[in-house]
Amino acid sequence: MTYESAKELKELAPWTKRGTVVFMSDFGYVDGAVSAMHGVADEVDHNLKLEDLTHEIPQFNIWEASYRLIQTMSFWAPGTVFVSVVDPGVGSERESVAVLTKTGHVIVTPDNGTLSHVAKEIGILERRRISETVNRLKNSQRSFTFYGRDVYAYTGARIASGTITFDEVGPLLEPNPVMLNVSDPVIEGGEVCGNIDVLDTRYGSLWTNIPDTMIFEKYGIKYGDDVRVLISHNHKIVFGYTMRMCRNFTEVEIGEPLLYINSLLNVGLAINQGSFAQEYRIGSGENWAIKLQKA
Amino acid sequence: MTYESAKELKELAPWTKRGTVVFMSDFGYVDGAVSAMHGVADEVDHNLKLEDLTHEIPQFNIWEASYRLIQTMSFWAPGTVFVSVVDPGVGSERESVAVLTKTGHVIVTPDNGTLSHVAKEIGILERRRISETVNRLKNSQRSFTFYGRDVYAYTGARIASGTITFDEVGPLLEPNPVMLNVSDPVIEGGEVCGNIDVLDTRYGSLWTNIPDTMIFEKYGIKYGDDVRVLISHNHKIVFGYTMRMCRNFTEVEIGEPLLYINSLLNVGLAINQGSFAQEYRIGSGENWAIKLQKA
Amino acid sequence: MTYESAKELKELAPWTKRGTVVFMSDFGYVDGAVSAMHGVADEVDHNLKLEDLTHEIPQFNIWEASYRLIQTMSFWAPGTVFVSVVDPGVGSERESVAVLTKTGHVIVTPDNGTLSHVAKEIGILERRRISETVNRLKNSQRSFTFYGRDVYAYTGARIASGTITFDEVGPLLEPNPVMLNVSDPVIEGGEVCGNIDVLDTRYGSLWTNIPDTMIFEKYGIKYGDDVRVLISHNHKIVFGYTMRMCRNFTEVEIGEPLLYINSLLNVGLAINQGSFAQEYRIGSGENWAIKLQKA
Repeated sequence: MTYESAKELKELAPWTKRGTVVFMSDFGYVDGAVSAMHGVADEVDHNLKLEDLTHEIPQFNIWEASYRLIQTMSFWAPGTVFVSVVDPGVGSERESVAVLTKTGHVIVTPDNGTLSHVAKEIGILERRRISETVNRLKNSQRSFTFYGRDVYAYTGARIASGTITFDEVGPLLEPNPVMLNVSDPVIEGGEVCGNIDVLDTRYGSLWTNIPDTMIFEKYGIKYGDDVRVLISHNHKIVFGYTMRMCRNFTEVEIGEPLLYINSLLNVGLAINQGSFAQEYRIGSGENWAIKLQKA
Repeated sequence: MTYESAKELKELAPWTKRGTVVFMSDFGYVDGAVSAMHGVADEVDHNLKLEDLTHEIPQFNIWEASYRLIQTMSFWAPGTVFVSVVDPGVGSERESVAVLTKTGHVIVTPDNGTLSHVAKEIGILERRRISETVNRLKNSQRSFTFYGRDVYAYTGARIASGTITFDEVGPLLEPNPVMLNVSDPVIEGGEVCGNIDVLDTRYGSLWTNIPDTMIFEKYGIKYGDDVRVLISHNHKIVFGYTMRMCRNFTEVEIGEPLLYINSLLNVGLAINQGSFAQEYRIGSGENWAIKLQKA
Repeated sequence: MTYESAKELKELAPWTKRGTVVFMSDFGYVDGAVSAMHGVADEVDHNLKLEDLTHEIPQFNIWEASYRLIQTMSFWAPGTVFVSVVDPGVGSERESVAVLTKTGHVIVTPDNGTLSHVAKEIGILERRRISETVNRLKNSQRSFTFYGRDVYAYTGARIASGTITFDEVGPLLEPNPVMLNVSDPVIEGGEVCGNIDVLDTRYGSLWTNIPDTMIFEKYGIKYGDDVRVLISHNHKIVFGYTMRMCRNFTEVEIGEPLLYINSLLNVGLAINQGSFAQEYRIGSGENWAIKLQKA
């Protein structure tokens, strides 16, 4: 369910005070940084539910932070507050903001591109600059390098607990956040052309930006069809192969490649019980393009 | 405490609605997969306590998933619901089940061998197939590759919260799940013969399937005794050494090997502040056998 | 806020029954050890909030455990109970203790040096030996190698939930715990002399023990000043460079080194978007000294 007006959303009783904060960062789990953020939030309100998306975003990788938000956010109840801290420009001129999405989620983050996928695919109803005069952990004014703890965790917890309303975050800005270059897939010249957005790190599968509706309904491929796959890196073709569109990995032999629909309902490339990325040395990002054609 | 009848267990008031879900998988912590499962469970019931066993099970390693359940389960209160997702055959013909154990725990899992140790060492009172027509996240029908989120987390949360009774999971099956080959230790020819079940990954210690009662009471070894240890891999002896049976690691010098009783009360092999597995290149699994003999 | 008397602190109503346990260890996240501790605590009281500081303390590294406590503790509310399990002497003669700090936190730990930084920089009001006859998980007497689960998690949960008072932990000891060699920074011969305490693992920055007040107020450096930095390892100089004291990493170019004030308000050394430790092969610990001088 999505909303078209911030006013409507703010008036919904079950929306406010959901009481959950979900943290994401590139801090890793080796030291006390994540725990310090949880502690700050717990001190704002002990009844908050404190959860983590991941803290293993590759360092300073804003694109991946943006992607992990879109991957996960809609599986959390409306009213859940996300605190994202991938912040290579910590303490510098980038804005610290909180946004309200059309799905009724709140994201507190440096506005450095982290909101790109959510803004493009879900939509942002309202964006506010965090007023650090009120929304900053007490006695943290001498600290300039841990906004995640001093500003974002603190502000996120205050919103999630109902200590402040969304309007009390700070001054209203234009709703459009800083955007990375998130491109659209198209059907062109009898081919489906898209990008390889991200690596499914643990399994070595690759996730494209081509939705199942485009490949099935608009382009006419069916489960079980063979598909000609071309992958190029910086406009140079590095992979050409015919692969079957499968429901499950087990429809091909162990070690064989396949196309499938991933958990976000986009086309993915995998090897049954193997790593597609490693086997064929394929990466992800805006320089990795993919074309699909009926075989 | 264990129960012999599912009927008796289901009627116990404190058993139901314990409100805890403990997740385990081979997903790792690098992306949003674990958080998506937590989000689905939180949306079923915000009052659930969401915990993790580990998400670092080696990919597709059903044996280790089975072992980590038996290692941990009994330290959680009866009524706790475990959601295990090590699922190399995701979306294929393996059954999706929920089982009720003799200790009053519930495990929701693909029935692919993950239940082996619990079935053998604790016992399963009841096994039910998950009816995906009712016990599946709404609007997830087009997703075939993330049962952990769409079916197991959702069903586990519904049981833990009391949204459905255990009977409402789906049709009753025979209680016996799919079994891996979990062997029994024996005393034979004056030796205690067992297997090296698992590596204590972080410390490099090895855990056998030989219980303290067998080595002490039945075989007659005492703390402080020297024991002749033979380890064989695929029936070929790869290690022979006399080691002392110790209460604490500190009873031998730093760098020295020892036998001890691990936290599951089975015989373990370690080096004080070192890695036994690495030093002697010993592995774990059904091809690694161990014999102990009074020195 | 700090307290000078244990009696005063114990009488404060909001202090007791905060209901939060924060776990730290060197167990890693790969097996069920952390989850077993959480399970034991949950069974003591289901209403406890169970949190983790980190479980990636390098094996047996008591110094780092001590540092991570001081890094994190004060961001958690008074009354929070920390359970720390970095315990190379598990089951041996080291004492198992619970301490009450001047900030109103409780730490349950083997008394092996883990309390050094907290004792020195915050202060301990009361130290008690854990009576294992009462404060030990039922039926765990045959287990000698997992005090974290059987004694520390269990006792920590009992304190945090109000099941026992702090006095019921066990007999009162002298307040002074076992201490590591934590040295003080000094201004000497026109230089600020300190130590490199710890590596900010994820980013490769180094954290000294020199507080911002010493470098700014006592020594007279200002943000924007150039500072001559000498680092020595075992009294041999291994690094000499002039670096600027910056508020934010972005005040120097990407790849350039800088001095900054870290999140604990001590002087840190970093490279903007790089790893200072790796680039210049600098480590941390008592053998790594640093001198700062106005350029």
